[in-house]
Amino acid sequence: MARINDHYLKLAAGYLFPEIGRRVRLFQGENPDAELIRLGIGDVVLPLSPAICDAMHRAIDELGTEEGFRGYGPEQGYPFLREAIAEHEFKRNGIHVDADEIFVSDGSKCDSGNIQEIFATAAKIAVPDPVYPVYVDTNVMAGRTGMPDAEGRYAGIHYLPCTEENGFLPKVPSEPVDLVYLCFPNNPTGTVASAAALKEWVDYARETGAVLLYDAAYEAFIAEEGIPHSIYEIPGAREVAIEFRSFSKKAGFTGVRCAYIVIPKELRGTDAKGQPVEIHGLWSRRHSTKFNGASYPVQAGAAAIYTPEGEAEVRSHIEYYMTNAKIIRDGLTQIGMETFGGVNAPYVWAKTPQGKSSWEFFDELLNKAQVVGTPGAGFGAHGEGYFRLSAFGKREQVEEAVTRIRDRMIG
Amino acid sequence: MARINDHYLKLAAGYLFPEIGRRVRLFQGENPDAELIRLGIGDVVLPLSPAICDAMHRAIDELGTEEGFRGYGPEQGYPFLREAIAEHEFKRNGIHVDADEIFVSDGSKCDSGNIQEIFATAAKIAVPDPVYPVYVDTNVMAGRTGMPDAEGRYAGIHYLPCTEENGFLPKVPSEPVDLVYLCFPNNPTGTVASAAALKEWVDYARETGAVLLYDAAYEAFIAEEGIPHSIYEIPGAREVAIEFRSFSKKAGFTGVRCAYIVIPKELRGTDAKGQPVEIHGLWSRRHSTKFNGASYPVQAGAAAIYTPEGEAEVRSHIEYYMTNAKIIRDGLTQIGMETFGGVNAPYVWAKTPQGKSSWEFFDELLNKAQVVGTPGAGFGAHGEGYFRLSAFGKREQVEEAVTRIRDRMIG
Repeated sequence: MARINDHYLKLAAGYLFPEIGRRVRLFQGENPDAELIRLGIGDVVLPLSPAICDAMHRAIDELGTEEGFRGYGPEQGYPFLREAIAEHEFKRNGIHVDADEIFVSDGSKCDSGNIQEIFATAAKIAVPDPVYPVYVDTNVMAGRTGMPDAEGRYAGIHYLPCTEENGFLPKVPSEPVDLVYLCFPNNPTGTVASAAALKEWVDYARETGAVLLYDAAYEAFIAEEGIPHSIYEIPGAREVAIEFRSFSKKAGFTGVRCAYIVIPKELRGTDAKGQPVEIHGLWSRRHSTKFNGASYPVQAGAAAIYTPEGEAEVRSHIEYYMTNAKIIRDGLTQIGMETFGGVNAPYVWAKTPQGKSSWEFFDELLNKAQVVGTPGAGFGAHGEGYFRLSAFGKREQVEEAVTRIRDRMIG
Repeated sequence: MARINDHYLKLAAGYLFPEIGRRVRLFQGENPDAELIRLGIGDVVLPLSPAICDAMHRAIDELGTEEGFRGYGPEQGYPFLREAIAEHEFKRNGIHVDADEIFVSDGSKCDSGNIQEIFATAAKIAVPDPVYPVYVDTNVMAGRTGMPDAEGRYAGIHYLPCTEENGFLPKVPSEPVDLVYLCFPNNPTGTVASAAALKEWVDYARETGAVLLYDAAYEAFIAEEGIPHSIYEIPGAREVAIEFRSFSKKAGFTGVRCAYIVIPKELRGTDAKGQPVEIHGLWSRRHSTKFNGASYPVQAGAAAIYTPEGEAEVRSHIEYYMTNAKIIRDGLTQIGMETFGGVNAPYVWAKTPQGKSSWEFFDELLNKAQVVGTPGAGFGAHGEGYFRLSAFGKREQVEEAVTRIRDRMIG
């Protein structure tokens, strides 16, 4: 009988969000009239901007005509989009990224899940704790770990604790690793890294030969001056880093699906004989063998965010969500809760009161305030005692959530 | 330094289509005025149908409103699409497939490339020869093979020769294998399998415990009565087969991107201890960890092919392409070439004249007739001496191609 991939059986019981879904459905079953406010999964709520809709409509009209029809596009993405990204996301900010170093995809979850394939199964990985579960789970599936312990930590993974003491900034590992996942602005803690902090990572990678997998899916939410939006703002990063970017949160594309990764030509790994190999070529091969390009109307919509109208609309959405973040932070602070993040990131990371566990607080918030958040422990052992609230909600709902938390959660 | 996945280095020089592209660009550089007719890659040319365009427009309008906006959709696809597929593709034809056994994706290339992940690295695979290169390459990347020989055959793969002698129908292997890739109507040979031929495979799989990976991407092109459109028409197939389906060729979605796979709940593999494991659960985990759902407007467009207007439009496109196939077959037959396929499949598989090699004939056709086809050898060693022409072209171009071949290729 066909042998399955046994590594899948190591995966801990549930991906975080399905477990939240299960508890919420249970609550709703028992309380059918409760009006839930969802600040959990971090999904955008504002309608797609007119500039994006218009561009997608035009693309569909093209596809409906003899002259305008397009079939298979380039697997790496259409030049019109790759060039717009290179120009507006990088060149305009003085960052060197060429259009042919950009690979357009249908989402950052896919990209950050698939990237590990081009590295050896024996590669040692390091991940922050707490962390976006996809980085870990996809490496478990690929056989780079042993079994999880009682706290969900997999044997073989080098965890980088992110705690209040270190400002939620992971420290470079003391032992050699091959791949390091980093995410700034951070999901789930909302923390950002200064240029100095990132330089430590780039220096570490240059010294040890590690490759940094830098997830910048939330860079558009950086509000303060002087904080790097891209790892490539750090000198030398082109030799050691891959960067992940997404239109999901920036432009409301969670249901439309478009993202991209950057692989500089200088980046190299080594083969079994110790010979250097260009990572760009490996990913290019992977991308063109297992992917057939993002949907054309979707790519047309993504390119529209680089028009003046599109930029203004994207900016106003981001400001809307960041005002939500401030309302959440202020509200929690008012009732004496300690919060982190939410200034340059759409997530507020809060310490649970009275030493409650993350899931205890989750259940209490659900039951008392009918607000759905995300338990920090779901992101890793060091997330225990913390809780994530997302700024992706309608204003009136965010305000109502804060009011309910203030009125119902004390005492 | 980060160790790469060395298996990538085993991959033969180029994926077939990039190599064709290289030769065509070379020719165009030397003959800038030549009017090429492309019947190679098998990409659709007719505009997207009005019913599909309308549905996509409506979906985008929804996304542009407060009430209609949708963010993350279910990873497995929206119920409206899964239910429409279950009803129209299966139930209506008396085939048992439930909506929750259908996983919607952004393309069959992804699905047929990713499916191997949920099986053991040690799993032994069998593939027809000639074959769609993605099945082979993705297994090479995953480490299930050794190096290729001079004819491009990878050590460790069990090849199933498809020859004129066996009617291009692969025979069940004499040695045990875990996974068997099958594709009917076949790419590249255009062959179909009778229920009796498929029953042999289902019986084999049931006896040995092998899993059949059945690619039915071209089922919509079956014109003759009595030929199975789905592997699940064969009794017992639900316990042994996964089926791949695509909107790409059926509905002109090569640039829009939508496909799906079917995994019946009865299908099981075994873990390292010999215990049975449900394949449906494994794929569900893979799909929800590494994929975030197909684009909503795309899924809305796909569902539109199941409306009466959509069905009629899809039907007329298929008839158009199948008339092309007949024109190609008749034209080649007229000049004495032996052809196969093209009756229930959009591909005509032709024997090269005078014992020419596939690539010799490719170059000759390009140089003398400015027609781009696909050399059979690009699909595997047993494709040598054959040539694939695709029926996906504009009528006038197909007619012109046949005229040129008749006038310029003789002698």
